[in-house]
Amino acid sequence: MSDKEFKRKVYLQDKPRKQAKDELIEALKLIPEIETVPTKVALGRVTALPIFANLSMPHYHASAMDGIAVRAEDTYEAHEHRPLHLKKNEQFIYVDTGNPIPNEFNAVIMVEDLQEIDDETVEIIVPATPWQNIRPVGEDVVCGEMILPQGHSLRPVDLGALLAGGVQELPVIKKPRVAILPTGNELVQPGSTMKPGDIIEFNGTVFASFVQEWGGEPLLSDIVVDNPKHIRQAIEKAVDEADMIIINAGSSAGSKDYTVHVISELGKVYTHGIATRPGKPVILGEVKGKPIIGVPGYPVSAYLALEWFLRPLVYHYQGIEEPKRETLKVRLGRRVVSNMGAEDFVRMNVGFVNGEFIANPLTRAAGVTMSMVRADGILVVSPDSQGLEQGEEVEIELYKPLEAIQKGVLFTGSHDLSIDIVSSLLRKKDVNRQIISSHVGSLAGIMAIRKGETHVTGIHLLDPETQVYNLPYVEKYLSGQDVVIIPFLKREQGWIVPKGNPLNIKTIEDIVEKGAAYVNRQRGAGTRILFDSLLTKHSLTAEQIQGYEREMFSHLSVAAEVKEKENSVGLGVYSAASTMGLDFIPVADESYDLVMTKSFFDSEGGKLFLEVIQSDEFIHTVEHLGGYKTVRDQTPKFLNN
Amino acid sequence: MSDKEFKRKVYLQDKPRKQAKDELIEALKLIPEIETVPTKVALGRVTALPIFANLSMPHYHASAMDGIAVRAEDTYEAHEHRPLHLKKNEQFIYVDTGNPIPNEFNAVIMVEDLQEIDDETVEIIVPATPWQNIRPVGEDVVCGEMILPQGHSLRPVDLGALLAGGVQELPVIKKPRVAILPTGNELVQPGSTMKPGDIIEFNGTVFASFVQEWGGEPLLSDIVVDNPKHIRQAIEKAVDEADMIIINAGSSAGSKDYTVHVISELGKVYTHGIATRPGKPVILGEVKGKPIIGVPGYPVSAYLALEWFLRPLVYHYQGIEEPKRETLKVRLGRRVVSNMGAEDFVRMNVGFVNGEFIANPLTRAAGVTMSMVRADGILVVSPDSQGLEQGEEVEIELYKPLEAIQKGVLFTGSHDLSIDIVSSLLRKKDVNRQIISSHVGSLAGIMAIRKGETHVTGIHLLDPETQVYNLPYVEKYLSGQDVVIIPFLKREQGWIVPKGNPLNIKTIEDIVEKGAAYVNRQRGAGTRILFDSLLTKHSLTAEQIQGYEREMFSHLSVAAEVKEKENSVGLGVYSAASTMGLDFIPVADESYDLVMTKSFFDSEGGKLFLEVIQSDEFIHTVEHLGGYKTVRDQTPKFLNN
Repeated sequence: MSDKEFKRKVYLQDKPRKQAKDELIEALKLIPEIETVPTKVALGRVTALPIFANLSMPHYHASAMDGIAVRAEDTYEAHEHRPLHLKKNEQFIYVDTGNPIPNEFNAVIMVEDLQEIDDETVEIIVPATPWQNIRPVGEDVVCGEMILPQGHSLRPVDLGALLAGGVQELPVIKKPRVAILPTGNELVQPGSTMKPGDIIEFNGTVFASFVQEWGGEPLLSDIVVDNPKHIRQAIEKAVDEADMIIINAGSSAGSKDYTVHVISELGKVYTHGIATRPGKPVILGEVKGKPIIGVPGYPVSAYLALEWFLRPLVYHYQGIEEPKRETLKVRLGRRVVSNMGAEDFVRMNVGFVNGEFIANPLTRAAGVTMSMVRADGILVVSPDSQGLEQGEEVEIELYKPLEAIQKGVLFTGSHDLSIDIVSSLLRKKDVNRQIISSHVGSLAGIMAIRKGETHVTGIHLLDPETQVYNLPYVEKYLSGQDVVIIPFLKREQGWIVPKGNPLNIKTIEDIVEKGAAYVNRQRGAGTRILFDSLLTKHSLTAEQIQGYEREMFSHLSVAAEVKEKENSVGLGVYSAASTMGLDFIPVADESYDLVMTKSFFDSEGGKLFLEVIQSDEFIHTVEHLGGYKTVRDQTPKFLNN
Repeated sequence: MSDKEFKRKVYLQDKPRKQAKDELIEALKLIPEIETVPTKVALGRVTALPIFANLSMPHYHASAMDGIAVRAEDTYEAHEHRPLHLKKNEQFIYVDTGNPIPNEFNAVIMVEDLQEIDDETVEIIVPATPWQNIRPVGEDVVCGEMILPQGHSLRPVDLGALLAGGVQELPVIKKPRVAILPTGNELVQPGSTMKPGDIIEFNGTVFASFVQEWGGEPLLSDIVVDNPKHIRQAIEKAVDEADMIIINAGSSAGSKDYTVHVISELGKVYTHGIATRPGKPVILGEVKGKPIIGVPGYPVSAYLALEWFLRPLVYHYQGIEEPKRETLKVRLGRRVVSNMGAEDFVRMNVGFVNGEFIANPLTRAAGVTMSMVRADGILVVSPDSQGLEQGEEVEIELYKPLEAIQKGVLFTGSHDLSIDIVSSLLRKKDVNRQIISSHVGSLAGIMAIRKGETHVTGIHLLDPETQVYNLPYVEKYLSGQDVVIIPFLKREQGWIVPKGNPLNIKTIEDIVEKGAAYVNRQRGAGTRILFDSLLTKHSLTAEQIQGYEREMFSHLSVAAEVKEKENSVGLGVYSAASTMGLDFIPVADESYDLVMTKSFFDSEGGKLFLEVIQSDEFIHTVEHLGGYKTVRDQTPKFLNN
């Protein structure tokens, strides 16, 4: 990068999101194209015109029953006490359901109401009324009748009515084609060998899948090199082929953000920058009457921007209503800070705890795709709010069916791979019974139980004084609360070091002496408390540990960090080291136990949970990981009961 | 049909629906197959196993901002009053968002916080804290982490997280293949030339579309000839190719219903006949461990049976929950009769009238596909109920989004093609503003306004005494109610006769004299009242009219009936005759006017309605039909205001 480039300054606008959307839709008169498709494959398509029947169904007077066709007038004398005989071919013919009724007959008598006398004669005892058991011409669909209005999304039953009415093909709205242009020199296709600085191009697949879900046809382009010439060429090609264009990344106002310049050269820019967080650096414009949307590279920002601006265009083009998400009133488990002047979009986890829906914010980082995967819903904080208080009731939009949220098991505490296994096995028993887990560490897990924010926590907290695990903490922080402690696992903690242990780390003193870069865990994590107690035991101080200040939030994150640096070491469990192909030097055996609220313990979900952790399949799978011993005696201890 | 065949009697069971379903699922242990698909095309598929990350994302320490990478320690002296200079390459390097941070640096300062001094030097006034603006390895996804549990339906964001985590292909549940066998000698493919007795095979397309919507893969077979040998062959082939089999028609217990015999020969029959109406003649069985479902030929019965028995199997196979329909509490506008011992499934129209949801049953005939198209929802009446009273509150399952129901315009009255046109134009203005119309005739329309069951009615009622149209009826039946009368259309009524008018019908006397078969309308229809007043005027009686007793419910039905018979004649509007290619002899000009409740007139829907009927597009389209004159002076008359 030449230093001069820093001098070119473009400032982002702070346009309200709704205004930006309305201006875009207003400015562009989207004229949908119409195409004719065979009715048989028209499921989900949208009618472009009202559709009228070409044929009546039935197209003849049809028998509605198996029986005989008669002239009603011939049967008027029939009576229980005066059975009437009818002659075949003269006075009746046999008909099956659906057979045409010849003009000379005008009623059908069901087979159940007949007595056969011989091959030529039947007996009846009840007269027929004219037109009984006959489906008149057009009973279902009458030729000329409007079967469907325009703007109708075709369901399976609609296709039946169309075919019944002789409509074998019909005019539908062409699916809007959306060109998706991933740009950036750092992007590589999935499956490439990765160098530092390479980023897998996955946003394009997500965008294409969204477009598909919304009824459009995605045209995902190759990765476009990040320079104005290539971006210009890509846009010009896309404008010829597609009805709308999405260009990913380069939408901000930095020195290498060319998109806005290219769009204003080729067409018009309506908006550059919206008052939202995340998602601010969005470009809304047009080239040759086609809408073009520049979205940021961070996945969460990009997905939200697509939903705000592309989704309405795709539905608008098709002339159908955007489906609305289900909403839910929830109580905030934690405070949500927000900045004035921008709409905040906060991904939330929601759980049904003690009879109410409690929602907690997930990470706010715009780069964390997993937060979209894990989110149960999204909270929109209005631009004139500075935030929402813990305990406040708010409405969120749901990303999952309410039933799944209602049945979800909230796990907040220290992460262990065994919890993923519990989650899988639980889901096998009941697909809606998913574990929603937050990795916050042991102490924060206990606090979540205390505040009624979780069903279960997993903890491994060594009391330095008594050298007893977990129980002292539960007694201290959860006194007076109805909780249940389940002895769960014994697991090995140890030094996680690069393959071959290049610094030959064996003890905590080695870390100090060999000047290793230590990868620490966050305050309140059981592993942090274990490390601190090792420091004390060996009369060492935090200042002697290089890297002590930096905090990672899980065993796997520690291992990932160790893998990055030759001279590093972390403390964590065996399974994390082995997953990353790292070496492991055992340090201590610890107790990882579960604490749950009594109300969850007693609930259907709690019972299933216990079934799972006591199952042979669970025990077998966990012990197979290495570094674990399951506790055979899982007798629950009840506190304050 | 040989008469003997009548003698073979099989009786249908009356098994409760839920019991039949549970027995079927219990008896069959469906073992889903697993297949590996590329992540890029896995949208909507269901994970077969828990999926773990193969890569961390980011897989290196990445800059989160455009700016410079520094050692935090080098910046501690920087202060507003003591700006600090940093040397390029020694103390900093330029980085863009996403660039890797070399090992010697540990913080990033944003470009906004820099002052460039020269090409080699920048100035800062705020110190950096370690690891600021750096995305650590695995911030998004950590290698080894569980991205998704098994049994998860893949959404766009999930595909992003999978690709980010280096998962380029994954194990998913194979889509269950459902073989669909349409049987019957009367069936012809859509587009064939139709003889009386031929029925278009459209159920297969509907079934295939349902299977697709539920996540299965339909295998729609050719039409199978209706004899045991061919049915046996078709089933044997289907069992080899598919996971489940649907066989359409022949599921009852008549002489030609071979299905049950063939299934019990080849496998097992668990159920033959369920306690529902419609849908009773259903067969549930298995052949070689594959479920096989025989469904009735009548479309409504067939679609319901599929939903009851196939849908749970398809979802069960995939290991995911059947989505539930939205439900709504409604008040019954009419009585719903039901028979004890069977669950009744009643298709319903629902409208939001005077602040409450009013539901009315549609036709109960199992052959009327259009009733499924028109239904807003379905009411299930329990087997121990004899029916539900008018005014009762009941819960129904919705077939349409609640918003569309809330915005729907209820039209109940005399049908006219112009109402279809209003419906189309209204929908153009607001896609949720659909007209839900019931063709019950003029007088019943007035009664629907009176009972608060509709928003609008269309009437053409001649008062025989005063020879004035409509107003006398409104004053008589709606006195004391807040209604608005909108003068709407003048239209021609006339004799609808076969092409060429073979009987040379000109007057009502001709009908009597030439012995024509008259096609009448139902009691209360404006056209019926017109015909009766013509009889009176010409001193004729109903007994002199052949066919007077038989009642059709719309102009188009009358025309369809006339088309069937050379010697027939009906009374109706010009457009109905011309649609069917029939001749038309004008008899009278009549006023077809609209009556609406004052509350609808004042509502947003009412305003849109009036806009539409006053629009040039509407006037042009209607006058183009022929036989109409639009009323230029549509000044509303207010009654009782």
